[in-house]
Amino acid sequence: MNLLVVGSVALDSVKSPFGSVEEVVGGSATYFSTSASYYTDLALVAVIGDDFPQAALDDLDQRGVDLEGLIRHPGKTFRWRGEYGFDLNEAHTLETHLNVFETFNPVLPEVYRKSEFVFLGNIDPELQLRVLDQIDSPRFVGADTMNFWIRGKREVLQKVLSRIDMLFVNDAEARELTGESNIVKAAAAIRQMGPTRVAIKRGEYGALLFDGDTVFFAPAYPLEEVFDPTGAGDSFAGGFMGYVARRRSVENAVLCQATVVGSVMASFCVERFSLERVRTLNPEVIGRRFEQFQRLMHYDPLDPLET
Amino acid sequence: MNLLVVGSVALDSVKSPFGSVEEVVGGSATYFSTSASYYTDLALVAVIGDDFPQAALDDLDQRGVDLEGLIRHPGKTFRWRGEYGFDLNEAHTLETHLNVFETFNPVLPEVYRKSEFVFLGNIDPELQLRVLDQIDSPRFVGADTMNFWIRGKREVLQKVLSRIDMLFVNDAEARELTGESNIVKAAAAIRQMGPTRVAIKRGEYGALLFDGDTVFFAPAYPLEEVFDPTGAGDSFAGGFMGYVARRRSVENAVLCQATVVGSVMASFCVERFSLERVRTLNPEVIGRRFEQFQRLMHYDPLDPLET
Repeated sequence: MNLLVVGSVALDSVKSPFGSVEEVVGGSATYFSTSASYYTDLALVAVIGDDFPQAALDDLDQRGVDLEGLIRHPGKTFRWRGEYGFDLNEAHTLETHLNVFETFNPVLPEVYRKSEFVFLGNIDPELQLRVLDQIDSPRFVGADTMNFWIRGKREVLQKVLSRIDMLFVNDAEARELTGESNIVKAAAAIRQMGPTRVAIKRGEYGALLFDGDTVFFAPAYPLEEVFDPTGAGDSFAGGFMGYVARRRSVENAVLCQATVVGSVMASFCVERFSLERVRTLNPEVIGRRFEQFQRLMHYDPLDPLET
Repeated sequence: MNLLVVGSVALDSVKSPFGSVEEVVGGSATYFSTSASYYTDLALVAVIGDDFPQAALDDLDQRGVDLEGLIRHPGKTFRWRGEYGFDLNEAHTLETHLNVFETFNPVLPEVYRKSEFVFLGNIDPELQLRVLDQIDSPRFVGADTMNFWIRGKREVLQKVLSRIDMLFVNDAEARELTGESNIVKAAAAIRQMGPTRVAIKRGEYGALLFDGDTVFFAPAYPLEEVFDPTGAGDSFAGGFMGYVARRRSVENAVLCQATVVGSVMASFCVERFSLERVRTLNPEVIGRRFEQFQRLMHYDPLDPLET
């Protein structure tokens, strides 16, 4: 398997200033897979309850996501309820029900153990470790986490960090993880903990990639309508890892491009609730936004003090 | 005169988490002029009291800033006292004393009336208008403003907006001016008010340029040490307008480059208190940061769905 993701598959209820939805398909692994599926085949490891809609599984299956590692357990699917104010950068969690995730013990199908590219979505770091333990010798492992685990399971999280190649976190998480308010210093401190690369996600302000001794920045695409930021970070990671797995390379030039791919996929995600926009793209629509993105960042290199 | 700026020349007292300074040289026109002086000759219109240090004037003079329009009045120089928390993006104003600015009535030296490029720094829009009235037929007028004037002198400000080519504002000002929370819509609404171009400054998150039907984005250079953001916006505008005046062109490619020039100059400004860093640069140091900036934004254009 080229790319493997473990994470949550959920039913989300979301309220933003632009509307609200109840129990729509969500979850870190779902957004990641849908986004990555435009770039590569991949396999999804997660657990759902008996109430998860079959149509959503059919959709993942049709886009080439291998679901052998997606276990259906008796009980209810993981549920999240959240709200956004006009500052769409911050989600306010109202309810979290782990449900079938409480007893989830991921056992990887044999064929998944040879995965080369791996993404550990935002779930309990103990589960992240358990998945990692079952993979023979991955080439590149990315991971996400959140303040809840930074506060509650720091020790296990440190073990995860010592075994991954790249961490994807937002500003606030980077600061909380390291105690550094300056984001450049926070990224350096994270790299001391293990991962040689760090992506700092900054919501509507874009994302920074720290790799080797270089920093690369991709803005968020400026949109007139931002409906719902839920899943943007996972769509970013899905685009990033999907592109890396497609290119089968982690050289700096590829990682910079992957950061742009991630930003483009995130820009689609926030335009609608749930997976509505990310699941209905096509190569032409994606290509067009890449061109717009390139114009957004392009200038003729200059020696400003020459005439 | 190639470039003319009107704005404040002040004595600032600033406290940031990294230290504090008392009555150091500041003001919108001072930062603007110092930053612009690396790119072009320019003239400064402002008022100071008898307590303003001669050494600061000598420094401006030596860097080619024409001071014929800088009037010394009996009384005290404009004073500002402000504070920053760990979120360096927002200044908390503690005290403002207009002093000699209260009765300032700018009368332009004859030679200034032929100015081609003009920047109206952040001062009372009535003064901005009075300066504009004295210039024969400027080619390109940029202006800055702030929430204080948006709230208190909206009508006069609208007159200013109807006569300028480009507005430089931060996110919060753009939102307050237009009532639009989405920044793309806010920029569009500002352009309905007059200026055909808008730069939205976003502090440590960079700046957006709206020009014609294009958007261009320049990140803020990620720094390990940010001492004091005071003057960053004016250093940005100074670099931007200085470069435009140097190139004598307002075509889109030049304005995109000018946005990068502005970001580079702002990145120096915040590294020290007052003008300490901006006034001690040289072409080599500036050129090196431009190269770093280019690496920060450069990626090989890609069609992501080709192999």
